[in-house]
Amino acid sequence: MIENGHYSAATQGAFELFDLGNLVLEPGETLRRARLAYRTLGTLNADKSNAILVTTWFSGTAKVMEDVYVGPDHALDPGKYFIIIADQLGDGVSTSPQNNPAPQTMGKFPKLSIGDDVAAQHKLVTEHFGIDRLALVVGGSMGGQQVYEWAVEHSDMVERAAPIAATAQISLHQQVFVQALEEAIMSDPAWNGGWYASGLDVRNGMDRMARIVATLGWSRAFYQEERWRSVLGMSSLDDFINGVMKAYFEPMDPNVLLCEMHKWRRADVGRHAGGDLAAALGRITAKTCIMPIDHDLFFPPDECELDRAMIPGATLAVIGSKEGHMGLNGFEPGYMAQVDATLADLLTD
Amino acid sequence: MIENGHYSAATQGAFELFDLGNLVLEPGETLRRARLAYRTLGTLNADKSNAILVTTWFSGTAKVMEDVYVGPDHALDPGKYFIIIADQLGDGVSTSPQNNPAPQTMGKFPKLSIGDDVAAQHKLVTEHFGIDRLALVVGGSMGGQQVYEWAVEHSDMVERAAPIAATAQISLHQQVFVQALEEAIMSDPAWNGGWYASGLDVRNGMDRMARIVATLGWSRAFYQEERWRSVLGMSSLDDFINGVMKAYFEPMDPNVLLCEMHKWRRADVGRHAGGDLAAALGRITAKTCIMPIDHDLFFPPDECELDRAMIPGATLAVIGSKEGHMGLNGFEPGYMAQVDATLADLLTD
Repeated sequence: MIENGHYSAATQGAFELFDLGNLVLEPGETLRRARLAYRTLGTLNADKSNAILVTTWFSGTAKVMEDVYVGPDHALDPGKYFIIIADQLGDGVSTSPQNNPAPQTMGKFPKLSIGDDVAAQHKLVTEHFGIDRLALVVGGSMGGQQVYEWAVEHSDMVERAAPIAATAQISLHQQVFVQALEEAIMSDPAWNGGWYASGLDVRNGMDRMARIVATLGWSRAFYQEERWRSVLGMSSLDDFINGVMKAYFEPMDPNVLLCEMHKWRRADVGRHAGGDLAAALGRITAKTCIMPIDHDLFFPPDECELDRAMIPGATLAVIGSKEGHMGLNGFEPGYMAQVDATLADLLTD
Repeated sequence: MIENGHYSAATQGAFELFDLGNLVLEPGETLRRARLAYRTLGTLNADKSNAILVTTWFSGTAKVMEDVYVGPDHALDPGKYFIIIADQLGDGVSTSPQNNPAPQTMGKFPKLSIGDDVAAQHKLVTEHFGIDRLALVVGGSMGGQQVYEWAVEHSDMVERAAPIAATAQISLHQQVFVQALEEAIMSDPAWNGGWYASGLDVRNGMDRMARIVATLGWSRAFYQEERWRSVLGMSSLDDFINGVMKAYFEPMDPNVLLCEMHKWRRADVGRHAGGDLAAALGRITAKTCIMPIDHDLFFPPDECELDRAMIPGATLAVIGSKEGHMGLNGFEPGYMAQVDATLADLLTD
């Protein structure tokens, strides 16, 4: 257990912790005295029909979703909706490798799955808020993986689903890629099986991971058009790699990122139907709008289209952003306008 | 200096060594008593008009070009042409980090450039063979980078040029990617600044590099359609990563790969015109046919098309292969048929 200010309220903004008790994880191990971090915006109406659940992505927490996706000028308007933004388990803010006491701490923190995240969120939504219908579940990347999990596993509760830049089943290509990220951290001798005094001790491995993330996280056009200059204000490619990619990950906890990657590269709603992805997606009753990013090298539009074809009545709305997958962060002015228009459309139906 | 049987004639097949003397390298350092490995097939005709130069790619040597691209059933037919296949400098077979004596050995081997390769090949072609016109210069990937260098720097000597799966100037995206490969090796403590007793000591770093190569070297379709099963006969994704990718690089020398990567990520013929790529490519007089591979994630067709537009009279012939960049190795039956047809067309003009 180590102190890491990056995951404190001073950095993350105010959040609540919901006591999950002893959470039996999908593979059978139990995460004891587990707590799920979340924050809410807006007010739940009398018939509890205006609740929206927002999920979170790899390395991101509820804060970026609040800052970029939620507000009076967005489709996710707290003036109209009661918006719950849930952190992932193991994301540094919820119960996580670095903040959990022994014995389930650091290198001994249990392995989690996307299903465990959704089970925890389901407890929060039903037991804490007494909500049995969600007007919308929306999230990007790993957040989108959670959206698919909700739509398949709790189809009776999800009125609308909007997975952004995500697929329902991790691709084989991405399995190979995420393992390369894991190896970058775990190969740093300072990682030491997950036992280190400070995340900064593992900075060499984290830096290598940051560069590998950069190779697919941004699009080729982002590099070749030098958008790291025009969009991000960096002075050179090295300045971008050091000042954006490495700087972004530096304050984070290595075990937290590994915990999330373990989930990321195993996400697959097909397991709810014995591996039959079409059967699992066929159970979805939510009005579903899938929103790939056109230049995304993690979850390209053609793979999202394959999901769409298996979901009854689902639509595909391709969002344009030369930032590729990282466009999710709203760096490009036009990005959120497209997302807001698409979500507003979905919500008015 | 260490023994590595992978680069011996027993593994590589018969080759010659051309004595380059003291080769002054592009940045000014001198590689002393340098030797360029090469092999020839076919017979030089009386007017020396039937010579073809074949260049080589990263981690590959003249052997793979001989085995896959040259033969009586190929456009590069030794019955018609005098075919010179040149190894890269520093590729393990030519003068290289692991086979050169002190002081320019191992971690002290000088840094090379694509320009140095072509300077060495130019000496071989002109001084050793007395050839002043090449009917064709052809090569793939880093071999294609050398083709561009030839066509720009020795435009008077090159009648036809066929860069396969390569661009004239390294993309910014690929610069980031190749550095990730370098870091995978150099971060292995056993690499030790280039001083190790055996390349196998650096196997952890080499294995990590092999996985990162896999993330862009093959196409997404290759993974998702499980072509590692149908095309390569591997039983699982892990079997493919271990049995193909790691096994392929394992016998190689880490410093050799680093030497080649240093060249790879700096390739840019624009430097011959003060950084003006269009001006440099505008000098090409060779009949040029650029051959990208449709699923290539290193050198995608749209980037090759940008080169084509800057070369007088150049054509683009996109080769179909779901193996992506690795298609270069001719794993897919249809690949060489397309390459041969395109080269045969080019050679009959």
